[in-house]
Amino acid sequence: MVDTAPRTEKTAKPEATTPGAEGRPAASTPGAARSTGAPAAPKIDTAKLGRQLLGTWADIRLAARARAARPELQRVEGLSMAEHRERVLGQLHILVGEGAVQRAYPKEFGGSEDQGGNITAFEELVVADPSLQIKAGVQWGLFGSAVLQLGTKRNHDEFLPGILSLEVPGAFAMTEIGHGSDVASIGTTATYDPETEEFVIHTPFRGAWKEFLGNAGLHGKAATVFAQLITNGVNHGVHCFYVPIRDENGEFLPGVGGVDDGLKGGLNGIDNGRLHFTNVRIPRTNLLNRYGDVAVDGSYTSEISSPGRRFFTMLGALVQGRVSLDGASTAAAAMALTIAITYGNQRRQFTAGSDTDEEVLLDYGRHQRRLLPRLATVYAQTFAHDEFLVKFDGVFSGTKDTEQEREDLETMAAALKPLSTWAALDILQEAREACGGAGFIAENRLVGLRQDLDIYVTFEGDNNVLLQLVAKRLLTDYSRQFAKAGPGAMARYVVSSTADRAYHGTGLRRLGQTIADFGSTARSVSELRETETQHEMLTDRVEAMIAEIAGRLNSARKLPKAEAAAVFNRNQNALIEAARAHAELLQWEAFTRGLEQIEDEGTKQVVTWVRDLFGLGLIEKHLEWYLIHGRLSPQRAQAVTAYIDRLIERLRPHAQDLVDAFGYTPEHLRSTIATGIELERQEEARAYYADLRASGKEPVHEKSLAKKGKKK
Amino acid sequence: MVDTAPRTEKTAKPEATTPGAEGRPAASTPGAARSTGAPAAPKIDTAKLGRQLLGTWADIRLAARARAARPELQRVEGLSMAEHRERVLGQLHILVGEGAVQRAYPKEFGGSEDQGGNITAFEELVVADPSLQIKAGVQWGLFGSAVLQLGTKRNHDEFLPGILSLEVPGAFAMTEIGHGSDVASIGTTATYDPETEEFVIHTPFRGAWKEFLGNAGLHGKAATVFAQLITNGVNHGVHCFYVPIRDENGEFLPGVGGVDDGLKGGLNGIDNGRLHFTNVRIPRTNLLNRYGDVAVDGSYTSEISSPGRRFFTMLGALVQGRVSLDGASTAAAAMALTIAITYGNQRRQFTAGSDTDEEVLLDYGRHQRRLLPRLATVYAQTFAHDEFLVKFDGVFSGTKDTEQEREDLETMAAALKPLSTWAALDILQEAREACGGAGFIAENRLVGLRQDLDIYVTFEGDNNVLLQLVAKRLLTDYSRQFAKAGPGAMARYVVSSTADRAYHGTGLRRLGQTIADFGSTARSVSELRETETQHEMLTDRVEAMIAEIAGRLNSARKLPKAEAAAVFNRNQNALIEAARAHAELLQWEAFTRGLEQIEDEGTKQVVTWVRDLFGLGLIEKHLEWYLIHGRLSPQRAQAVTAYIDRLIERLRPHAQDLVDAFGYTPEHLRSTIATGIELERQEEARAYYADLRASGKEPVHEKSLAKKGKKK
Repeated sequence: MVDTAPRTEKTAKPEATTPGAEGRPAASTPGAARSTGAPAAPKIDTAKLGRQLLGTWADIRLAARARAARPELQRVEGLSMAEHRERVLGQLHILVGEGAVQRAYPKEFGGSEDQGGNITAFEELVVADPSLQIKAGVQWGLFGSAVLQLGTKRNHDEFLPGILSLEVPGAFAMTEIGHGSDVASIGTTATYDPETEEFVIHTPFRGAWKEFLGNAGLHGKAATVFAQLITNGVNHGVHCFYVPIRDENGEFLPGVGGVDDGLKGGLNGIDNGRLHFTNVRIPRTNLLNRYGDVAVDGSYTSEISSPGRRFFTMLGALVQGRVSLDGASTAAAAMALTIAITYGNQRRQFTAGSDTDEEVLLDYGRHQRRLLPRLATVYAQTFAHDEFLVKFDGVFSGTKDTEQEREDLETMAAALKPLSTWAALDILQEAREACGGAGFIAENRLVGLRQDLDIYVTFEGDNNVLLQLVAKRLLTDYSRQFAKAGPGAMARYVVSSTADRAYHGTGLRRLGQTIADFGSTARSVSELRETETQHEMLTDRVEAMIAEIAGRLNSARKLPKAEAAAVFNRNQNALIEAARAHAELLQWEAFTRGLEQIEDEGTKQVVTWVRDLFGLGLIEKHLEWYLIHGRLSPQRAQAVTAYIDRLIERLRPHAQDLVDAFGYTPEHLRSTIATGIELERQEEARAYYADLRASGKEPVHEKSLAKKGKKK
Repeated sequence: MVDTAPRTEKTAKPEATTPGAEGRPAASTPGAARSTGAPAAPKIDTAKLGRQLLGTWADIRLAARARAARPELQRVEGLSMAEHRERVLGQLHILVGEGAVQRAYPKEFGGSEDQGGNITAFEELVVADPSLQIKAGVQWGLFGSAVLQLGTKRNHDEFLPGILSLEVPGAFAMTEIGHGSDVASIGTTATYDPETEEFVIHTPFRGAWKEFLGNAGLHGKAATVFAQLITNGVNHGVHCFYVPIRDENGEFLPGVGGVDDGLKGGLNGIDNGRLHFTNVRIPRTNLLNRYGDVAVDGSYTSEISSPGRRFFTMLGALVQGRVSLDGASTAAAAMALTIAITYGNQRRQFTAGSDTDEEVLLDYGRHQRRLLPRLATVYAQTFAHDEFLVKFDGVFSGTKDTEQEREDLETMAAALKPLSTWAALDILQEAREACGGAGFIAENRLVGLRQDLDIYVTFEGDNNVLLQLVAKRLLTDYSRQFAKAGPGAMARYVVSSTADRAYHGTGLRRLGQTIADFGSTARSVSELRETETQHEMLTDRVEAMIAEIAGRLNSARKLPKAEAAAVFNRNQNALIEAARAHAELLQWEAFTRGLEQIEDEGTKQVVTWVRDLFGLGLIEKHLEWYLIHGRLSPQRAQAVTAYIDRLIERLRPHAQDLVDAFGYTPEHLRSTIATGIELERQEEARAYYADLRASGKEPVHEKSLAKKGKKK
């Protein structure tokens, strides 16, 4: 989008000045120069805002950050893969030694059954080293959680002590080479043999090798293996089994084989690998039998009669990985922007409005456009993540464990994890580029974090597959609410919206207000700032997108299966875009609820601008949709961009405060260019030239000689 | 953009069938199922198309690829930084031994003065290892080129032999910590001392340390150092000096210091580092004196009287780095898509239209949307790059070395290099994600290539800075042509357009036809396919954007300097977007000219679809602009997306042929997942299940038992 607003238009002028933040060396703002006589700028209470950003488990987060600031838990650049793996394994033992791994586990195993606090602490490990975060996640969040969530007391008593003490490092053997996101179709079989009362774990073909498993390449002694449970000639679908894989010397047990995945694009502190099984026998009781069991005689029982619902219940028990990836991605993005904005406030390049003083990078319009909208996104993610954590805690602590809540949680996970993991890559890359060559040097952290987080977008559920799940949920909600009322019902549907109901929950957002005439109403630009306007526009888009797709899919219902599938396939891209729109709305709503909690006036003003930048940024990103669907006139559409430009100018002097509020210290950032070294260099250079001018020894520039020559 | 076209609309139906390409296992296309009785699909002549894609120096490119296929020149994953550096240095010696480095140099130094061929061969080194490409580029494309292009015979005779033989590895010491893209402001000084007839090279403050220099960290024995030339109390601006930096034992010479940059985000086969100089004395004759010289007595002379023009002439002589980055980025992107599309044609996941057969990934609508438009972009880049090479060759060989051609070449470089380097990162990432976890494993190449190419977007000119240069050129062109005629002149301007003039050259595109009434004319959807329509729409946008910005800047001309700078700054983002639009147009035009060269009917048909996908993809990307500016009605805008969906369906069966035509063999790709191993695995799995069903031993699924139970 290009700023095409005429400069004479009244609404294109700023309403408040944005003088440089006092005491900050780099806060000169050319954009602010044109405003005079306006009220004083608001000021952020960074400490209070910072406390809010820490979220519901603030003290646990602070303690986890203190841990992440310790060098022995941090990544060291330049280690070989073998060294890095050993270092991270050692760090896991440090965590065990400090009792830092069992917070989510039952009290009898030393835990405190604190689900939200556990994820809060866990995700901050990304600050120390993403390999540490993910290796710990494999051991206690996946391998251990499988035993905890899918097993019963018998499994817990037998397996959890070794898992918690790290005596038994383990792999979470779900994914197969031939089946990533489609877990229901895995090929590995677990066939019950009543004669020996054993399950026989078997890999029938190469595509069924378990793949990309952390701890499988080297350190793992056991694995929780997902396999088709077959007993008495019946396949009861995917279940999970505890399977020892290596002996005490680290050699594979009979029938077990595997390959080290070797070097990866990142996370090289983790020993990912493949595993395969050739008629490996395990005791009957190694079935993690919470949701399905096999008796000695081979008869199968489950408290969930539907195989489909049983499968999704088992998978749903493992949602916590997605919660933590959302948090870790947000943390990494916050660090990246702290580095890039700090540097952008110090580094100078080219002169613009002056003959001698070069501009700091962040005073350039393009630089602001690159970084500030992304800062708004990280704010939105931070607030959304806290709500996500609270919902997760409610379900898994049992305080709010209803089927509806579980379903909402899973939809929320499938919506938020894709957006925040993709945003982390985007933000780390933009931050790296905004720091130029310095961003590419490993010691400045940005490239390493990006390499490690790359895989976050496809593991724990491929982002595209997850968004498709969200879209299917939205379609289901839609058909429940509106299918019978016929097309157009959605647009006419008006619910009473109270402060509580205005924006809450997940699933399909209800629409208040008057979307039917929204496009034709001549609203003033100032309305774009209004919370309710933004909410309506974002909600309207999700609902209209889903309604359109539902209409198209509905017409294909009576077609033969292959043709119906083709129609669905032709709508797949649009479906995923609708899911993304829904996820963006969830983030905006969480941001808005977070904003309502702010009491300090100055902080509230600035963070409102950030929220507006986020909300209008979403509308600008999808401007063609609003135009095509008559929700915005061309004039209004231009006003969106003009207002965003204004918001960016207003926020520029607050950029440093806004990243400082994330609370990451130099011990966390460990980025040379964010230490103030650049400011020292710039000041030294400016002093050199000032002294040179003062000394009278400054060489004359040929250019100025030439000018003088002409004047003669 | 969501596909919102009504399914009943006539234009939303395909005009030709797209049956699966025969003999290709994965070419089942559900999207094509709805067409019947249409004409047979066109067929690509892959060999002929492949030859065309090799470009003007096809045989040299083939020879360079044969070299890049040799293991001793290739990257080995998992080397330490030190090992990788030594390996690449050794590879440079191999190139020297084979006489592969001096093609661009004068015949007296063993070269053939073949500029286009030289870059063609050089850029294909990226296939072997980007570190090799860039380290070779530092030695012979920057360090050596500085001596060649900025020096005279005296410099050539003295320095080129050691450079070409690699006896003297060297650094290109232009960038400083405090000055990247703003070379004119560097702090290093070279002060002439007539008493000793020496220049004194000096680094006055830390910000003036030379930084990120390849060969400076370890191997460099000399450097071409850019410094402010000062003689007789006058600063004549930036010049380049040949400065020895290390002795035969690899120790810094007196007065020279430096730091190894250590580990980077990629390209770790290159020893980047910093250099600084404390009153280092070099002979007067070490000034590379082609564009400026200092006599024994200290008097300065230059054949270019304007210091500004002299500076830009010197910089312009070094444009070849940008040419080669455009080519290398395109090569890397082509390899990435070859890997991802080959894998996407083999890997199966989820069943859709069948009960037993899983779909190959590339049959999914979303997967097609992710990969095929990017394939169209690489085609456009390939054609544009060849024109870029030809223009470069014309200027540097002297056959077409006019000031206008040089200016056009520099604008073309500043336009194309940003787009192709950014596209490479985008495409490598999308390919990596499209291959899921396998894309993250180093042996599949995608992550390594992306890490290495990351820095391409900010070195040899930061992409944003380059685009701003393009925009300034466009503004200059605009003001030359239209400023006097007043606002609106642009829109009324109609030039006669011949086949030759329709799309050629660089700088501001001339507009033919009737843009004034373009929006209001009810054109049919089929017109979107027309070359002239696409050309008009893309051209119109560039011109209108520039005209709008020019109007806003013009009104600020009389403001004080600081305020005028603020107005410019407020338009910076829009300017850069306009430059991007111009660069996209250049790519589209080159693609269209390339298309006109195709004689085979089937090939021409398919590649026309690819070109249309590229052109309409650009329009879809900027759809909000076309809507806001009244160039497209909402209905037409929806038709753009509907037609893109149709093109993608048509192209899907040709996807493998289109990547195969790039001509990269398994020796180049070296990607396990692109070897056919996945197809073998899938076939093994399918055979296993078929055998199991045939054997009668297949376990019954609990689900089907439950259904039977209900029926009873």
